[in-house]
Amino acid sequence: MRSVNAMTEERLVQEITPMHVDFARWYTDIVKKAELIGYTSVRGCCILRPYACAIWENIQRILDTEFKRLGHENVVMPMLIPESLMQKEKDHVDGFAPEVAWVTMGGSEELTERLCIRPTSETLFCEHFASIIQSYRDLPKLYNQWCSVVRWEKTTRPFLRTLEFHWQEGHTMHATSDEAMEETRRMLNVYADFAEGDLAIPVLRGQKTEKEKFAGGVATFTIEAMMHDGKALQAGTSHFFGDGFAKAFDITFTDKDNIVKTPFQTSWGMSTRIIGGIIMTHGDDSGLVLPPAIAPIQVVIVPIAAHKGGVMERVDALVEELKQAGIRVKVDTTDASPGWKFAEYEMKGVPLRIEIGPRDVEQCSCVVVSRDNREKVCIALSDVAAQIPDLLEAFRQRLYNKALDNREGKTRTAHSMKEMVSFSADENFFIRSMWCGKRSCEDAVKEQAGLTSRVIPFDQQQVGDTCPVCGEPAQHMIIWGRAY
Amino acid sequence: MRSVNAMTEERLVQEITPMHVDFARWYTDIVKKAELIGYTSVRGCCILRPYACAIWENIQRILDTEFKRLGHENVVMPMLIPESLMQKEKDHVDGFAPEVAWVTMGGSEELTERLCIRPTSETLFCEHFASIIQSYRDLPKLYNQWCSVVRWEKTTRPFLRTLEFHWQEGHTMHATSDEAMEETRRMLNVYADFAEGDLAIPVLRGQKTEKEKFAGGVATFTIEAMMHDGKALQAGTSHFFGDGFAKAFDITFTDKDNIVKTPFQTSWGMSTRIIGGIIMTHGDDSGLVLPPAIAPIQVVIVPIAAHKGGVMERVDALVEELKQAGIRVKVDTTDASPGWKFAEYEMKGVPLRIEIGPRDVEQCSCVVVSRDNREKVCIALSDVAAQIPDLLEAFRQRLYNKALDNREGKTRTAHSMKEMVSFSADENFFIRSMWCGKRSCEDAVKEQAGLTSRVIPFDQQQVGDTCPVCGEPAQHMIIWGRAY
Repeated sequence: MRSVNAMTEERLVQEITPMHVDFARWYTDIVKKAELIGYTSVRGCCILRPYACAIWENIQRILDTEFKRLGHENVVMPMLIPESLMQKEKDHVDGFAPEVAWVTMGGSEELTERLCIRPTSETLFCEHFASIIQSYRDLPKLYNQWCSVVRWEKTTRPFLRTLEFHWQEGHTMHATSDEAMEETRRMLNVYADFAEGDLAIPVLRGQKTEKEKFAGGVATFTIEAMMHDGKALQAGTSHFFGDGFAKAFDITFTDKDNIVKTPFQTSWGMSTRIIGGIIMTHGDDSGLVLPPAIAPIQVVIVPIAAHKGGVMERVDALVEELKQAGIRVKVDTTDASPGWKFAEYEMKGVPLRIEIGPRDVEQCSCVVVSRDNREKVCIALSDVAAQIPDLLEAFRQRLYNKALDNREGKTRTAHSMKEMVSFSADENFFIRSMWCGKRSCEDAVKEQAGLTSRVIPFDQQQVGDTCPVCGEPAQHMIIWGRAY
Repeated sequence: MRSVNAMTEERLVQEITPMHVDFARWYTDIVKKAELIGYTSVRGCCILRPYACAIWENIQRILDTEFKRLGHENVVMPMLIPESLMQKEKDHVDGFAPEVAWVTMGGSEELTERLCIRPTSETLFCEHFASIIQSYRDLPKLYNQWCSVVRWEKTTRPFLRTLEFHWQEGHTMHATSDEAMEETRRMLNVYADFAEGDLAIPVLRGQKTEKEKFAGGVATFTIEAMMHDGKALQAGTSHFFGDGFAKAFDITFTDKDNIVKTPFQTSWGMSTRIIGGIIMTHGDDSGLVLPPAIAPIQVVIVPIAAHKGGVMERVDALVEELKQAGIRVKVDTTDASPGWKFAEYEMKGVPLRIEIGPRDVEQCSCVVVSRDNREKVCIALSDVAAQIPDLLEAFRQRLYNKALDNREGKTRTAHSMKEMVSFSADENFFIRSMWCGKRSCEDAVKEQAGLTSRVIPFDQQQVGDTCPVCGEPAQHMIIWGRAY
């Protein structure tokens, strides 16, 4: 086993903590042992190691292509925001100021005005929009930016909550409120379709409560996913700003009717936290399980007795065929044992493993093993490249169904505060109930049952008539839960 | 002209300042009027507007593909560096500390240790390498990162010198000094080939003097380009670090012979400043001129009398054909005048313009106009898609030749300080001379002729035997110049 290094061998010895023993440790073990994250001496900041970086690049490529298809253009804004600019929209600065990092010195010089590292870039986009929007002909402006932002969090966890995180933030300006609202919903659906289609993560689409909405916005829409442990993950948000920011930043345009008007605005974002969501939705006690669309390696080929006649010739031919078919394939020719390699690529969550040995070559076949259920199928070598796309799609579908089953199995309907408290005493559930819409009842649920409002789903059901907290007439069905 | 907005019409009225009148204003006019840059209230920081962002994305795609082909992997490091980590390598902190931005507060809390925003990430990479390199099997580590960095510059200019700028920084670790040196030179050649091949910018490849090398490194290699005004632009650098950083950061590995050794290191970077280099190498008094490899639009089609029968059908068919051929094509169907459109896409530097009007449709031909020399050729519609790649390549070759002519025309050989002073009195030249290698002579050239050492070219010529400053035996031929 010459080519297996000491560190990786050690990893096999230290098993990862089983999920049912300690979900948090299971998570941390995976991010370390699948070599996703490196720790640094910078508190609360992580290194995205090559494997995590490759996952993020795949996510970026898919989303970026879709944003551009819908007419969005990328821009790059500065990372620093002067305090005075940050303060222009009152709710916004109140919401973000407590958690920003402040630059107060440049070189050895004290700055006359301190600058914060962007926690989000609405203020910068607004300042820019004010300078480039004059006429209805300049609208809509459909911008997006890929960058990192900093929020001074007290407690952090890899991907889920870090001082610095990577994301995209879309910022758009429209002539009318209706167009802006349409964009807000369109982009929420882009996220939802991406989560469900590419990431195999079922999500609830809907609106956040007033309490949970974006600081300075009018309405926030969200996709909420359930993790394996029953906790919620807000996986993407899309905000309708109305004309609040535009008014605060003096953005106006002359409309077709020659009247000077204020445009309407949206913003929307998805971040590296979605990688945490992928881990906690699909992972198992052997490691990561990656949906094919974003897996850096979709198929790994492990030659068995590679030195025997004909094995490597067949492997090389198959690699070529799979690459031609657009499959991300890796062949592991190191002289580690097959068993070690199996464990290694299971840890890395590679969807399909192909084993080819001398007997397979004789029989012109190979064995394909799925990462999720370990099912083995024997496939003729001449058919395998043609069948891989279907096997990957079936794999994706199984991941989605399993995640949906988990969510349905961990969703309860509550008709009283007592039920909410009892459901959430020992376990994490999505709790479905009616709600009157009042902040006081939302606060009471937090206080008594330890749950926060996750989403008012677009897909409403009438599970009662009154708010289970105050007994007054209900306005919506809402989902409560504990969240990452 | 309904669809032409007030702002863009105004642009036609304000001509850009001709290059020979004021090169600096010409440059600033272009970055504004070609909509590359937006200014913000953040001192010294610019917005990369969609057009500049698209250029940068093309640059990134080409370089990233090449880095990966050579075995490099992308990682993402934190943007913040604790002061104590920054101080581990003495020359490095001395070189960079005077120009970093310091974060001293998180939220409302004063930090116990201040953090700088990375001016470059050697220290973070070293800390990470120390934790992941144990054995010779872990080497080489070939990493790259795409990010932005901050350096607290006093005076700034779009692309050329900004407080925050975007770049990639490669960081690699090797078992031997030879391997690290090979990597250093390999990556310099990647930059040089990219500059000359894709950007049509001729460059001098060579080494920086001790005075001009990277803080903390052993040797810095550079590609130096000459701008239209005769000034130099350092367009990419590749550094050989020896084992200095590795020792400062306690990075060791157990080699095959079971002896614990210190690995050898490189770093290399290219930044958005290269966009400034493209502008100042190829641009003219009508605006940008973009090399096809990185032009967001390679071919613009301007229909003439588009409402007349058959024009748009032919245009649409041609767009489809060009897209199929992998050409980035745009058709402008707005009802601005053809003349306005010609000026617009000249400003944007689009390499080729295709004009199709009713008479062209009748004759089954179109007119193709090159941005650089305005030469018009009439091409049969059935041939045009097949001929565009050749026209683009001829265009690239002309840009390269013109830039090379400029450099050769503005290079002088000096044999004495008097010649250096006289050559550089009124004009910018690359001045070729011999040099003894002493810092004192380098300082004297700066003081008396106002020139800095640009590069000791790999391609040496014996233009004399002695140093023109001190008269002692010469060690190298060196290039002096004024630089951006």
